[in-house]
Amino acid sequence: MSKTRITVAKGDGIGPEIMDATLKIIMAAGAQIEIDEIEVGEKVYLSGNTAGISKEAWDIIIRNKIFLKAPITTPQGGGYKSLNVTTRKTLGLYANVRPCRSLHPFVETKHPVMDVVIIRENEEDLYAGIEHQQTDEVVQCLKLISRPGSEKIVRYAFEYARAYNRKKVTCFTKDNIMKQTDGLFHKVFDEIGAEYPDIEKEHWIVDIGAAKLADTPEAFDVIVMPNLYGDVLSDVAAQITGSVGLAGSANIGDEYAMFEAIHGSAPRRAGQNVANPSGLLQGAILMLIHIGQGDVAEKVQNAWLKTLEDGIHTYDIYKEGISKKKVSTSDFADAVIERL
Amino acid sequence: MSKTRITVAKGDGIGPEIMDATLKIIMAAGAQIEIDEIEVGEKVYLSGNTAGISKEAWDIIIRNKIFLKAPITTPQGGGYKSLNVTTRKTLGLYANVRPCRSLHPFVETKHPVMDVVIIRENEEDLYAGIEHQQTDEVVQCLKLISRPGSEKIVRYAFEYARAYNRKKVTCFTKDNIMKQTDGLFHKVFDEIGAEYPDIEKEHWIVDIGAAKLADTPEAFDVIVMPNLYGDVLSDVAAQITGSVGLAGSANIGDEYAMFEAIHGSAPRRAGQNVANPSGLLQGAILMLIHIGQGDVAEKVQNAWLKTLEDGIHTYDIYKEGISKKKVSTSDFADAVIERL
Ligand SMILES: CC(C)[C@H](C(=O)O)[C@@H](O)C(=O)O
Ligand SMILES: CC(C)[C@H](C(=O)O)[C@@H](O)C(=O)O
Repeated sequence: MSKTRITVAKGDGIGPEIMDATLKIIMAAGAQIEIDEIEVGEKVYLSGNTAGISKEAWDIIIRNKIFLKAPITTPQGGGYKSLNVTTRKTLGLYANVRPCRSLHPFVETKHPVMDVVIIRENEEDLYAGIEHQQTDEVVQCLKLISRPGSEKIVRYAFEYARAYNRKKVTCFTKDNIMKQTDGLFHKVFDEIGAEYPDIEKEHWIVDIGAAKLADTPEAFDVIVMPNLYGDVLSDVAAQITGSVGLAGSANIGDEYAMFEAIHGSAPRRAGQNVANPSGLLQGAILMLIHIGQGDVAEKVQNAWLKTLEDGIHTYDIYKEGISKKKVSTSDFADAVIERL
Repeated sequence: MSKTRITVAKGDGIGPEIMDATLKIIMAAGAQIEIDEIEVGEKVYLSGNTAGISKEAWDIIIRNKIFLKAPITTPQGGGYKSLNVTTRKTLGLYANVRPCRSLHPFVETKHPVMDVVIIRENEEDLYAGIEHQQTDEVVQCLKLISRPGSEKIVRYAFEYARAYNRKKVTCFTKDNIMKQTDGLFHKVFDEIGAEYPDIEKEHWIVDIGAAKLADTPEAFDVIVMPNLYGDVLSDVAAQITGSVGLAGSANIGDEYAMFEAIHGSAPRRAGQNVANPSGLLQGAILMLIHIGQGDVAEKVQNAWLKTLEDGIHTYDIYKEGISKKKVSTSDFADAVIERL
């Protein structure tokens, strides 16, 4: 098998630790990849490059097309735009896929049977980044929703459901208030949904939908939603499986793809070798599937599951009575590798 | 005690049933009120008044200043603006207070010790209702945050915490993305918070804050946030206490106040005499406190708690092993009245 060249950024905070663990695991499993490492984020920013990324680093991302990214810290201060968002937009990564599945009885959760995939629109909404000061005392941010953008993500959700044999796609919007913007998203959902008679469809107003998701996640299957709702509710969904540290995400475009953990860089945990690398590892597994190395992905996934099943848990999911051993980031990685 | 004249709207869907139950209970408890009933919502809209409310009804709301409102259905169709939102804005009801408390062991919940008060900004944000079609394929909605608006709600939250002996006020924003709008809200939180050295303060990015709230609500006390986050997360918080049907809300302004359930009109349950009137009853209790009838409020609250404690539950909170009797809306009201 010829090797796939990918770009890797170790990011900020706990990023380097969880990236080292992730790469060690997938290389041990036989991933056929070559790595170009780039520096992005806080360090670059603090060195005077206010974009947080150099021209050379961008060129590498563009050339390799596949990007595995650890969490990045957004430095305080008005001028700095989120590099996550810039990357998603610049590379046209319109779909953010976030599977959130309970691992009961191996990881403690109040929601033992949940298996939800959140498909989050990834370029529009309030993330378009158009903000300005209107008067001395009033600021505003534009929420943008476009028909092509909505069509792309809704179609992606239905195609995903078909490909992965999922039975239902749910849409969340607040179209009782935002009749034009969220209304358009909902309308497109109905239109495109009609092309998928094999798949069950439903729509919830996001407030009560979120409540239902937090309380009874087993009622959902695939959920498609605008960017900001997807941001908030994928954190909720991941957390109630046991930890926000368990979920990875695929940012998919027509030409490029970026894979990451769904959580942030947790600066307070940095450098302590305690963070759970599972989120980024799940991102890497999604990447391996994407680049046609599904066999390696499966091997990693099984070893990871076996590790959790054996009660080898990082602090965030450690629970007396369920867990057997509280391990560090690197010990967790070694435990997964032993089980490959 | 002289009677307070209040305005009552029975609303749509389950509205009339839960309002009848609520009024029956508070009158039996000795509430010193006189009621002017107005018609608002779907029926008015369908009769050709696209505002959903008549001039006369408005005059009554304005005159009485205190408004107890059942849920309203927003009819489908672009032109109709939410009457809830219009009322909040027109009356200057800037603070939406939503207490969400678990009633363990009497009502089943996965979160037995939660006791959170969400204080939601109630006039600005994406609820300003400024939406338009920008091009054929692009629509937009303005998110507005003002300094005076933010100051008012943040100060309200700290004053509330002091008055009710709460230890901590948490702020949720997404200011890593919306640096100007959410950034302003966060900044105002820090500024005004500094005037309250006796109260603990913290800020969470709304995605991970929402995740924490859904998973570990006992970590929070009072939470203040912009309008839309407050809308979504108060439904989440109420639902995980056991049911979204358990929470009421106070919409407070300098001159007017409106009290309601936090849930919607549930058209599919309408006319069946099954809905839980507790949310609206909680709204009415907040109203009684507001108009200086705290003794009546306490009496109602105790009888309501006793009813739940006795396992007399509507369908939404009915659970074998905890509940004793599944009751209708009106039977629930009678059970509360028996316990006054
Ligand atoms: C870090 C932040 C910009 C990002 C987002 O809001 O999308 C993160 O929360 C995520 O969900 O990937
Ligand atoms: C009905 C709707 C307009 C309202 C809102 O979004 O504020 C409701 O969800 C609420 O929370 O009171």
